[in-house]
Amino acid sequence: MTTLWKQAQTLHPTFERFHRCLEDDWFLLDHEITLQRAHAAALLDAGILTAAETQAIGLALDEIQATHTTPHAPPTPPASDAEDLHTWIEAELTARTGDAGRKIHTARSRNDQVATLLSMHAIASAERLTKKLGGLVETLCRRSIEWSDLQLPLQTHAQFAAPGSAGAWSMRYATAFDRVREQFVHHAQRWRRSCPLGSGAVAGSSIAIDRKIQAAHLGFDGPSLNALDATTTRDECLELLAVGTQLALHLQSLATDGIAFSQTPFAWIAYPAPFATGSSMMPNKSNPDALELLRGEANSVSAAHAHVVLLLKGLPSGYNRDLQCIKPIVRDAADTLLGLIDLAGAFVGSVAFDADRLDEALAHGDVQATLRMEMRVQSGQPLRTAHHAETGVAVELDPSLNAERYRTTGSASPAEVRRTANVLLTRLGAEPIA
Amino acid sequence: MTTLWKQAQTLHPTFERFHRCLEDDWFLLDHEITLQRAHAAALLDAGILTAAETQAIGLALDEIQATHTTPHAPPTPPASDAEDLHTWIEAELTARTGDAGRKIHTARSRNDQVATLLSMHAIASAERLTKKLGGLVETLCRRSIEWSDLQLPLQTHAQFAAPGSAGAWSMRYATAFDRVREQFVHHAQRWRRSCPLGSGAVAGSSIAIDRKIQAAHLGFDGPSLNALDATTTRDECLELLAVGTQLALHLQSLATDGIAFSQTPFAWIAYPAPFATGSSMMPNKSNPDALELLRGEANSVSAAHAHVVLLLKGLPSGYNRDLQCIKPIVRDAADTLLGLIDLAGAFVGSVAFDADRLDEALAHGDVQATLRMEMRVQSGQPLRTAHHAETGVAVELDPSLNAERYRTTGSASPAEVRRTANVLLTRLGAEPIA
Amino acid sequence: MTTLWKQAQTLHPTFERFHRCLEDDWFLLDHEITLQRAHAAALLDAGILTAAETQAIGLALDEIQATHTTPHAPPTPPASDAEDLHTWIEAELTARTGDAGRKIHTARSRNDQVATLLSMHAIASAERLTKKLGGLVETLCRRSIEWSDLQLPLQTHAQFAAPGSAGAWSMRYATAFDRVREQFVHHAQRWRRSCPLGSGAVAGSSIAIDRKIQAAHLGFDGPSLNALDATTTRDECLELLAVGTQLALHLQSLATDGIAFSQTPFAWIAYPAPFATGSSMMPNKSNPDALELLRGEANSVSAAHAHVVLLLKGLPSGYNRDLQCIKPIVRDAADTLLGLIDLAGAFVGSVAFDADRLDEALAHGDVQATLRMEMRVQSGQPLRTAHHAETGVAVELDPSLNAERYRTTGSASPAEVRRTANVLLTRLGAEPIA
Amino acid sequence: MTTLWKQAQTLHPTFERFHRCLEDDWFLLDHEITLQRAHAAALLDAGILTAAETQAIGLALDEIQATHTTPHAPPTPPASDAEDLHTWIEAELTARTGDAGRKIHTARSRNDQVATLLSMHAIASAERLTKKLGGLVETLCRRSIEWSDLQLPLQTHAQFAAPGSAGAWSMRYATAFDRVREQFVHHAQRWRRSCPLGSGAVAGSSIAIDRKIQAAHLGFDGPSLNALDATTTRDECLELLAVGTQLALHLQSLATDGIAFSQTPFAWIAYPAPFATGSSMMPNKSNPDALELLRGEANSVSAAHAHVVLLLKGLPSGYNRDLQCIKPIVRDAADTLLGLIDLAGAFVGSVAFDADRLDEALAHGDVQATLRMEMRVQSGQPLRTAHHAETGVAVELDPSLNAERYRTTGSASPAEVRRTANVLLTRLGAEPIA
Repeated sequence: MTTLWKQAQTLHPTFERFHRCLEDDWFLLDHEITLQRAHAAALLDAGILTAAETQAIGLALDEIQATHTTPHAPPTPPASDAEDLHTWIEAELTARTGDAGRKIHTARSRNDQVATLLSMHAIASAERLTKKLGGLVETLCRRSIEWSDLQLPLQTHAQFAAPGSAGAWSMRYATAFDRVREQFVHHAQRWRRSCPLGSGAVAGSSIAIDRKIQAAHLGFDGPSLNALDATTTRDECLELLAVGTQLALHLQSLATDGIAFSQTPFAWIAYPAPFATGSSMMPNKSNPDALELLRGEANSVSAAHAHVVLLLKGLPSGYNRDLQCIKPIVRDAADTLLGLIDLAGAFVGSVAFDADRLDEALAHGDVQATLRMEMRVQSGQPLRTAHHAETGVAVELDPSLNAERYRTTGSASPAEVRRTANVLLTRLGAEPIA
Repeated sequence: MTTLWKQAQTLHPTFERFHRCLEDDWFLLDHEITLQRAHAAALLDAGILTAAETQAIGLALDEIQATHTTPHAPPTPPASDAEDLHTWIEAELTARTGDAGRKIHTARSRNDQVATLLSMHAIASAERLTKKLGGLVETLCRRSIEWSDLQLPLQTHAQFAAPGSAGAWSMRYATAFDRVREQFVHHAQRWRRSCPLGSGAVAGSSIAIDRKIQAAHLGFDGPSLNALDATTTRDECLELLAVGTQLALHLQSLATDGIAFSQTPFAWIAYPAPFATGSSMMPNKSNPDALELLRGEANSVSAAHAHVVLLLKGLPSGYNRDLQCIKPIVRDAADTLLGLIDLAGAFVGSVAFDADRLDEALAHGDVQATLRMEMRVQSGQPLRTAHHAETGVAVELDPSLNAERYRTTGSASPAEVRRTANVLLTRLGAEPIA
Repeated sequence: MTTLWKQAQTLHPTFERFHRCLEDDWFLLDHEITLQRAHAAALLDAGILTAAETQAIGLALDEIQATHTTPHAPPTPPASDAEDLHTWIEAELTARTGDAGRKIHTARSRNDQVATLLSMHAIASAERLTKKLGGLVETLCRRSIEWSDLQLPLQTHAQFAAPGSAGAWSMRYATAFDRVREQFVHHAQRWRRSCPLGSGAVAGSSIAIDRKIQAAHLGFDGPSLNALDATTTRDECLELLAVGTQLALHLQSLATDGIAFSQTPFAWIAYPAPFATGSSMMPNKSNPDALELLRGEANSVSAAHAHVVLLLKGLPSGYNRDLQCIKPIVRDAADTLLGLIDLAGAFVGSVAFDADRLDEALAHGDVQATLRMEMRVQSGQPLRTAHHAETGVAVELDPSLNAERYRTTGSASPAEVRRTANVLLTRLGAEPIA
Repeated sequence: MTTLWKQAQTLHPTFERFHRCLEDDWFLLDHEITLQRAHAAALLDAGILTAAETQAIGLALDEIQATHTTPHAPPTPPASDAEDLHTWIEAELTARTGDAGRKIHTARSRNDQVATLLSMHAIASAERLTKKLGGLVETLCRRSIEWSDLQLPLQTHAQFAAPGSAGAWSMRYATAFDRVREQFVHHAQRWRRSCPLGSGAVAGSSIAIDRKIQAAHLGFDGPSLNALDATTTRDECLELLAVGTQLALHLQSLATDGIAFSQTPFAWIAYPAPFATGSSMMPNKSNPDALELLRGEANSVSAAHAHVVLLLKGLPSGYNRDLQCIKPIVRDAADTLLGLIDLAGAFVGSVAFDADRLDEALAHGDVQATLRMEMRVQSGQPLRTAHHAETGVAVELDPSLNAERYRTTGSASPAEVRRTANVLLTRLGAEPIA
């Protein structure tokens, strides 16, 4: 095994199996290359690297980048016995540049390096999630406007409650996903405030590099305040996963609603065949697997948050090797979320409501009872008296009492659905729809 | 059981036992009273309540407030057979004001009401936590400055690593807690943006109240966008608990460090007796129970987050009764965090390091190896070569190579500790310390 | 505060608030009294207590039992400044018996004491759960036989799949709950194998008491093997909660099914009014709150398991004060489960299926497709060919192709439902039903 | 994509990405082949397959086995567009045997098939874990006897408590791991009781195969009772993970102890170099990474349990596609546990205590205070009086008061350590050590 430290004894093979992590680190390659450039700039400024050495490092990094990264970073590293990504890249640089490579790790430790890479990954993930969510919100807003007049019995406690529209239903998700989107924007900004690089192993370095140069190169506002904090904590991972968990829960709610709407006795939606599968035994089946997998896979994000909490619980200050285990967790969670947003967006874009079934549904559950009660209130009867008067009263559906009556802002009326969809479209920078 | 709905049959006693929740709701009483006032104002504006009725409601609320709330809200409700807090307060208002009380629930449901109360509780909790954390950060900064010259071997992997100071150690927590504090500030602002009240049960109301009046009265920026979203989601609870979980993890790390520092072979701190207990069997014991309980109790906050995720997972849109279970979880988590911050602050304020033990400790673990290696680097040797040259070299501690050398910004040097402590003190609005 | 150890300084009030646990311990009172009797017997045998002292201890315990316990142990302790239950009872004994009370803690620590109490609590909880579950399984078996001919479209992927019966559905839960019941039986037996008492604080005692006497008195098979293990681990708590989590998940699945069956478009069950509530705003609503609370409250058990895992994670060997936090968690989880089994049993005992609605439902989803395919197979067509031949074929329901055809053992046919219900009834020691 | 159902439309690519699971299923290949043989035997008995067809199926399975499995099943499937493992193997059989392959899925669904495979996997995993744990327990017992006279201050609350031995410490883990081992034995037996195969999709089949033949072929005691339960539940996965979580927690406690014993101020153990790594920056470091990774990786098992709980929460009866997500979770958890037991065993087998450091340690913490107190008790002083008399008394270590005094069964004395180690060795079928 190639290591950055002098090694007298070979590692026990069982330990080495758990220890080597080049493959697990590989998703950070792009950020690692960027970090090397920033660090080289600081070492040049501090007089540790000469201009020629810095240039050599830069060219070597260009070469590594050209060979090993693609627009969509390849998931597998080259055959190598390097301990980890940091070791691999120093070896590559040294092979290409000699002493310049041997100098690149000056005033730096893998502890501050990996903290920086994870911050960079969190920021990049949040940015990609922000963009994807923007697309999903836009799709939902467009469909909401399209569906704003399509009446549907809104439910509480999974029971028909009051008339609303398919658009009011889909605006529930546009609103929730936009709230999550804004959280990713907020966190990416916040994470950019503080660059861990330069914290060293735990105590900085006696070599006076200018951390502001590193921070600026990497797009951070400035260096982190405390080296022990910067190398110990994984707050940005927790935050990415916590917001991801909220996103997962909303996606799961969407899946639950969609599955219910496609259940045999509902049949409110014509479940789109490209998102369904059949049964190996029952020729009659067409199953909403896409939504079940949306609901199922989303759990991995919530579980990832709980997993990282468990990992961090009770660790002492200073880098501990347990932190290694966090890397694949955040990598997979971010990937899964991006895929699930795609899946949700593709489904929402494809699905069609069955207007006849919705119309038929409105006849059930006495969904106009609240409207009738409120008409009594408008006539002066106290609400509670009116409520009790309308309890247990069976009245046929009155088509004139439609959902447009729910005129409270943000409510279920067609006009309100259109208004709020346009609020969100405008917030996203998209054209409002007349 | 007193209910707001007409009830033909008595509930099954086993169900009623799980169903009645006046006691669990009681912590929301203050917010409930405030909400009634805001709602009455909107009903007056909409012509549902007369000026006289509105005044009667106000006086009745004054009376309820005087009788049932104290500066520190009493944890137990009065004997009552009311189904929940909302039922209890409507009954109290009706008993005092007649039809005005019967009108108070117009254009409102318990669904939007409880969503609003939980937002108000989240905001108030975040504000209290912000203040408490400010105090803890200030304490830590003051102690950091006090301890900035007290050298201590900083650790990684729970092994001595490099010289730092007790102040560098405590600034790790000042930095982390201040980051958490800022998150609470951010979330409280965000939660204030959107007032659920007026969303009704799921679809708003056909009675055109002005939701902006409610929002303004309650200190929100404006009404929420979508009624289905506003009554279904509990994002502010999740966010309060997610930030609380990060706080819990930092508190647990502090506890772990403190317990290690007080372990028999360390004895770096003189563990303060008012935070210790003895053994029923072993007369020699003095145990760091306060820190063990800090570590232990903090888990309840992380578990609360996981609990709410589990509760919400897979629920359909619209209010579901499962949401009831969230109330005591967020109540207890906020209370526990406030108590644990107090405990941490009291401990940090009381503890003293043993300078002689710290001094003795520095002789172990060859903690100056990195400094020696960096002196080679300063003389022109490439880092990696210098690193290997210093590996396995046994050198006596050189007192002149002190922690002040770690001069990289944000590092462990005494000057940096003082500088960064003053950065945070200034951020808190406190006087920097010369 | 009264303590068992000599206390020079008063505790810091914030610490004391978290530290004092008499109230949290109180649910263990019955077991604590039993333990004192067993320990007194061992101390008599070892010559530490005289016969007269032992008798005095016994009488004092009778008195404490008479005063402070009732068949259903009172949830609140007497006003006392005792640190915990162990301190309180030693003080009570000493107040009544003098030096005998001062001797009762000989060769014992609170560490082995509480480990023993928690084992006793786990055993008693498992036994109560076993009994309750037996009742629930019996109810389900009786209803399964009653419902064995009531055809219903069984579902997969929440879509109609194949004809079965309401009885086949309820036997799913009888089978699952009986499996859980057997697990509780198994664990109670296992926990009884090993009595922690006599392990002392961590290393036993130099006073040679006969631990077999203690174990026999407390109904254990014998003393535990290793004092460090016995005082550190909480495996019986984890196991109680792990089996409880499985129970919780089955209860939640039952709730989900029941809620679906009562949804407006299904209306397969006449949801029983004593388990429903209404809405404060919508006079038309009758909500399945009992099932929603069953689903909601059950999460607290799964969350309790995760909570204890988090608490235990990474603790060093030997008693740590974090373990204190486990006590209320297991207390509440066992109580909740007992209540939820009651609720599920009461609901299952009350609910009625609507035969007409079920009949109407069978016409949908082409649920006989598999039967038609299998008729082709019986005629010699290979299954896969027959499957594809029946795909997309719309055929009217043939009433002669009923659920009785599913004759594979354990399947959904009426005869199989009756047979398997009787298997379980026999296992429970109940009379099979002809 | 090759499917078992007739497919008119191509799947949406995003959905297909989440949907295809041949790779995730591949670890079940060995069990899948065994299952096909058992099912063919039942189909032969039922007259669905001829003798010649059955033989052809058998030969084809031999071929598949020879080509695709190795003693250690290869982790990657062949290039194939099959939807999943079940589809792949039916296609392979049909390619080789024609109509026999088209008949193999008769009276069977992927729902009962996968439930059976997961039970088989759980049983096989438990058996492998049982064996591995047996080896670890044996190693610990042997080392315990070796270390039985090596005195060490046992700790509670992470503070020196009383004299014990390194052997008493290691017997804590032998005892705990043996308890876990017995749980795996128990569960494997229990899981073997009930074979899901023959449950069909949800309602068995109208083709009367003899499920007892299947069960017998697969090593189960008999067929499962209820088809809906058998295809819905994943209790054996939960149980495997719940016991695995207990194992993980004990491994983590072992890691915590080992890390503490190797901390710079302790240095009780000579941490073995083949389990350590160095630092990229600090030439002085040798870090206990193996134990940190043991502690870190073990969290994935606890997190896996919580993940499956989350997945299952609230699902309706009948197979739901969410269940697909469980497969890689249990695969990885079992693999991780097997690796971690190896790691723990290799470490325990390699580590050496430093007798001089332990000897030095005993002078601290007044660890003989309890012995002195108990000498007072032996002289007739009541325990509580003796306890208070010894509090705060500083006495030099008396070498004659050694750990052998802790003679209570199961305690920390050298003789007891040897006795209990031999109890466990005998239980494992190993020779006791004189």
